[in-house]
Amino acid sequence: MNHGGNIYQFARRLGCLPEQVLDFSANINPKQAVDLNCLQGVQLTPYADPDYGLLKQALDRRYPIPAGVDIELFNGASAAIFALLRGLQPKDLVLYTPLYGEYAHIAGELGCAVHNINRFNHLLADVPERSTVVFVNPSTPDGRLYDLQELLAAWQAADCTIIIDESFLDFCSADSVAERIAHYDKLYVIKSLSKFYGCAGIRIGFILAATAAIKELHRFEPAWKLSSLDMAYMQQALANNAFIEQTLEQTAYLRDLLYQSLQGSGLFDKIYPGQANFLLARMANGGDGYRLQAQLEPSRILIRVCDNFEGLDKSHVRFAVKDELTISQLAHSFKNVKK
Amino acid sequence: MNHGGNIYQFARRLGCLPEQVLDFSANINPKQAVDLNCLQGVQLTPYADPDYGLLKQALDRRYPIPAGVDIELFNGASAAIFALLRGLQPKDLVLYTPLYGEYAHIAGELGCAVHNINRFNHLLADVPERSTVVFVNPSTPDGRLYDLQELLAAWQAADCTIIIDESFLDFCSADSVAERIAHYDKLYVIKSLSKFYGCAGIRIGFILAATAAIKELHRFEPAWKLSSLDMAYMQQALANNAFIEQTLEQTAYLRDLLYQSLQGSGLFDKIYPGQANFLLARMANGGDGYRLQAQLEPSRILIRVCDNFEGLDKSHVRFAVKDELTISQLAHSFKNVKK
Repeated sequence: MNHGGNIYQFARRLGCLPEQVLDFSANINPKQAVDLNCLQGVQLTPYADPDYGLLKQALDRRYPIPAGVDIELFNGASAAIFALLRGLQPKDLVLYTPLYGEYAHIAGELGCAVHNINRFNHLLADVPERSTVVFVNPSTPDGRLYDLQELLAAWQAADCTIIIDESFLDFCSADSVAERIAHYDKLYVIKSLSKFYGCAGIRIGFILAATAAIKELHRFEPAWKLSSLDMAYMQQALANNAFIEQTLEQTAYLRDLLYQSLQGSGLFDKIYPGQANFLLARMANGGDGYRLQAQLEPSRILIRVCDNFEGLDKSHVRFAVKDELTISQLAHSFKNVKK
Repeated sequence: MNHGGNIYQFARRLGCLPEQVLDFSANINPKQAVDLNCLQGVQLTPYADPDYGLLKQALDRRYPIPAGVDIELFNGASAAIFALLRGLQPKDLVLYTPLYGEYAHIAGELGCAVHNINRFNHLLADVPERSTVVFVNPSTPDGRLYDLQELLAAWQAADCTIIIDESFLDFCSADSVAERIAHYDKLYVIKSLSKFYGCAGIRIGFILAATAAIKELHRFEPAWKLSSLDMAYMQQALANNAFIEQTLEQTAYLRDLLYQSLQGSGLFDKIYPGQANFLLARMANGGDGYRLQAQLEPSRILIRVCDNFEGLDKSHVRFAVKDELTISQLAHSFKNVKK
């Protein structure tokens, strides 16, 4: 599972309902911008507008699309990543690790030569000429927000195709690199909506790129790919401007609370200073994240062990920022963990 | 537009709402099996079950999946067609025409050599050895239900990969060819749910194929691709067994009514004996379908001219089976058409 543990298997094992799981494994905002009542009156009969006019308007108001830049919608960022790499067919793919497994998985299926660059130790390492680079900003699982100036210059000097995955950027008060597309037409920006808008069940993600690049990508896409229900939901969620500031404030406050809980547990010797809606921690004395996972299981708490992130091992565990009550339950459960 | 006219452009032109258009251009059941109230309680926060367990159970109850056969879900049949052809990368693609444009469009993007076989004149024409054949049954735009016995034998003898698109089969009391998969592992069956269940806005379609073939197809698919709202809706729609018989009866009754309206108009010299939820008609004296379309426009009626179906010209027009009132409005509007 790339995005977290499988709460369905976990719930079956514990004999509880999936919604009873305290899921710290998936980085999803616990709050939503609108509720399902907003779907009243949605028409299911006709095919949706094949130009996605209303949705694109709502997106443009939320994420202003620079001149010369166009957008391609997908049924989730995961589908967007797949489609983009399948379209680009990169010979050399540079992955800045640690990184979630999706990119390496697809690279494997497509037969790309993968070059891993460890962000922690060799951030400014050289990249092969004309390779395709993938950088997730803020990064996962550590949530660090990078200033990409220097990297972008180096990649452009090497004539690279650049993919910046900004799936968690909305949690930071930072600008997208999308405005750079006008100056470098081999730059692609991938955005997810599920994380910030707390709706992993809504499958809408998108890619911003130069108009010609989007046109090329669009050639291999079916006419209808988004659910009318998802679109109606997302149009209204995107229009809730107050939710943006609220989420930023809430996330900062709750992330701090989570940090204190992790700190106070005495279980970890390092907590990474994340800027997104999750925190990465390293267990003290090379402790075993799976052992911790097992000890939290009776409390219906699911956490993410990060040993399948390239460059990390099972002493690294990641915690999503959840609501206050859930974090306090985690803190309470930590007390029963045997060190 | 492959599946009908664009009601959004049409409505803008007429200065009305899309839902005010009497849309005979898209073959969508005007009835639904369940309404949107069924979505109450759906959780948007967690990622959906990546195994799609409940949806697959509901599908299996509706369309029993034979032993040795597996299923891959897609965000609509249109996405399924794209993924399948992209996966198979056929050198030679045989299309039985007339046929909607999707297959030829994708074939063009993939660079396949396309061989058209006209069903009306040369149904049993030879196919190239080891080619990939595509047959839509019942066919569109004419709605004829074919007995495929002889064709299947011929394709198998030529060692073909066989794609049967059964997007409209639910409107006929006929069996799927999916049970043949156990005997021929290069057979793929594509199913749409939007047409029969009257919900083009719900994006769920699927492919049935041999277990190994599905495994291969699955390699290039993202982990999450279906909307949780769509899945919840479809699970409940699929469980409404009474809807199946009702739809078959209603469609037969209304198709007959539509037939009489077309016949009674005196505008057509041929109405094809369709078995699905639409009828194809040919205008008398080589009349112009676009002229008819323009004359029906002030009544907010949108029809489908079939000149972009290979082998047909603009004298061919297609009408979806709509409810009784809408059909009577069509019949009324025919009276004002100048011959």
